[in-house]
Amino acid sequence: MNDTQHYATEVEFGDCDPAGIVYFPNYFRWMDAASRHYFRAYGLPEWRELTPHNGIIGTPLVDTQARFLRPARYGQRIEVRSRISEWRQKSFVMTHSVHRGDELLLECTEVRVFATRHPEDPERIKAVALPEALRALLPA
Amino acid sequence: MNDTQHYATEVEFGDCDPAGIVYFPNYFRWMDAASRHYFRAYGLPEWRELTPHNGIIGTPLVDTQARFLRPARYGQRIEVRSRISEWRQKSFVMTHSVHRGDELLLECTEVRVFATRHPEDPERIKAVALPEALRALLPA
Amino acid sequence: MNDTQHYATEVEFGDCDPAGIVYFPNYFRWMDAASRHYFRAYGLPEWRELTPHNGIIGTPLVDTQARFLRPARYGQRIEVRSRISEWRQKSFVMTHSVHRGDELLLECTEVRVFATRHPEDPERIKAVALPEALRALLPA
Amino acid sequence: MNDTQHYATEVEFGDCDPAGIVYFPNYFRWMDAASRHYFRAYGLPEWRELTPHNGIIGTPLVDTQARFLRPARYGQRIEVRSRISEWRQKSFVMTHSVHRGDELLLECTEVRVFATRHPEDPERIKAVALPEALRALLPA
Repeated sequence: MNDTQHYATEVEFGDCDPAGIVYFPNYFRWMDAASRHYFRAYGLPEWRELTPHNGIIGTPLVDTQARFLRPARYGQRIEVRSRISEWRQKSFVMTHSVHRGDELLLECTEVRVFATRHPEDPERIKAVALPEALRALLPA
Repeated sequence: MNDTQHYATEVEFGDCDPAGIVYFPNYFRWMDAASRHYFRAYGLPEWRELTPHNGIIGTPLVDTQARFLRPARYGQRIEVRSRISEWRQKSFVMTHSVHRGDELLLECTEVRVFATRHPEDPERIKAVALPEALRALLPA
Repeated sequence: MNDTQHYATEVEFGDCDPAGIVYFPNYFRWMDAASRHYFRAYGLPEWRELTPHNGIIGTPLVDTQARFLRPARYGQRIEVRSRISEWRQKSFVMTHSVHRGDELLLECTEVRVFATRHPEDPERIKAVALPEALRALLPA
Repeated sequence: MNDTQHYATEVEFGDCDPAGIVYFPNYFRWMDAASRHYFRAYGLPEWRELTPHNGIIGTPLVDTQARFLRPARYGQRIEVRSRISEWRQKSFVMTHSVHRGDELLLECTEVRVFATRHPEDPERIKAVALPEALRALLPA
């Protein structure tokens, strides 16, 4: 089973900084988009459609590590390749690489949780296990 | 010598996502701002004022690692505390922690370089050593 | 009664584009922040604290017009001056000007509504009148 | 000659605010992207490729007016339709509409200039006429 999903976008003028290259927080925005597209590609509903059923509001990050290898400029097509490299009890490890044609621009590892609002404290969120029926849709 | 600088900001409505908490790429934006304020606090000129003299255009990231401990919501004051924890030949390690009052929200370690445009390839950037006169302004 | 509120911020490196000046959508972000600070300055609670009581989730825009007079660069302090220039049944007109010291950078007029989720269609929002008790806190 | 260009994108989780709808400054970001794609569609080079030849660094806004008709949520495809509705001496009027399927979400009119850096003051920009050879590539 193919367990990698590809998300393509184009770097825009406004994504770049005065040095003329991508302002790096935008890579995290694109990898976050790639993460949502990953789950959608396997048939999971949007998080907001899940919320009334199991309380899940999204997959916030608990940890991320990224290595930036080459800069990119506006007008260039880039592709984020994403897969889940490890499943844990209430979290998972997502691995992304960002490419421009043959060139690797960035590697990133994220630890994310499926989160609900905390039942007792609206200021906090709570990690939960992904329901089995949804887990079954995703690569082993 | 005090070697930690503090950068305060307030989380705005538009910094938060449909889960009602800070959309995480914004933390990287704030830590990047904190990094610029760090150098300004010790008297370094803006990067664009340095460019005509030594070609430096900024301090792009080559590596970052972040741990997210608690979410934040709009209307809350947060503070980024930043210091340079290690100097290398052409790079340095910047350590940030993000606080909301007494609570630690986030810890992050960044490896950054002082960069100029690459002399032969406008698509690339090149790491350079910080000129001694500027290095002397910063904590040992 | 003073009916203008001031919101100050500093233009950051990442707020600027490859032309070295503020990427214009950021002005709308800052004016939106200024709008929230306006209501907070007169004692209104955060929108999310209002939601359980009267359903209000925020003040989305229905119309905006802006004139850009001068560019700004990173490291510069700017100030947004905001007031409500007209009250209508279920909407209001907010007028902003953005200044850098003595210089006017931008003028903007926004029409906003107090919005709740639409009772029948989660895809839509619904304009409502601001409850009298809250309206009384604001300048006539 | 077809004088309208279409730019499609998908609303992402991080483009939305705590009300669950697109945070409005993102529409300006997408319309700005659509504007760049418009010129690219007719064969104009990227601005940074023009800069060494005629100094043009981009097309900053001098005026914009937008009407927001319907909100959008993450996971929805939207399309920006853009055309130049008027040519002036050193500026032009760009008209955008944003659609989600059959529904009109937003209408916007922008006045933009072709800008170079000001020859005497790096803090300012200067409007210039688009060179004839480039103008000839665009719809009358």
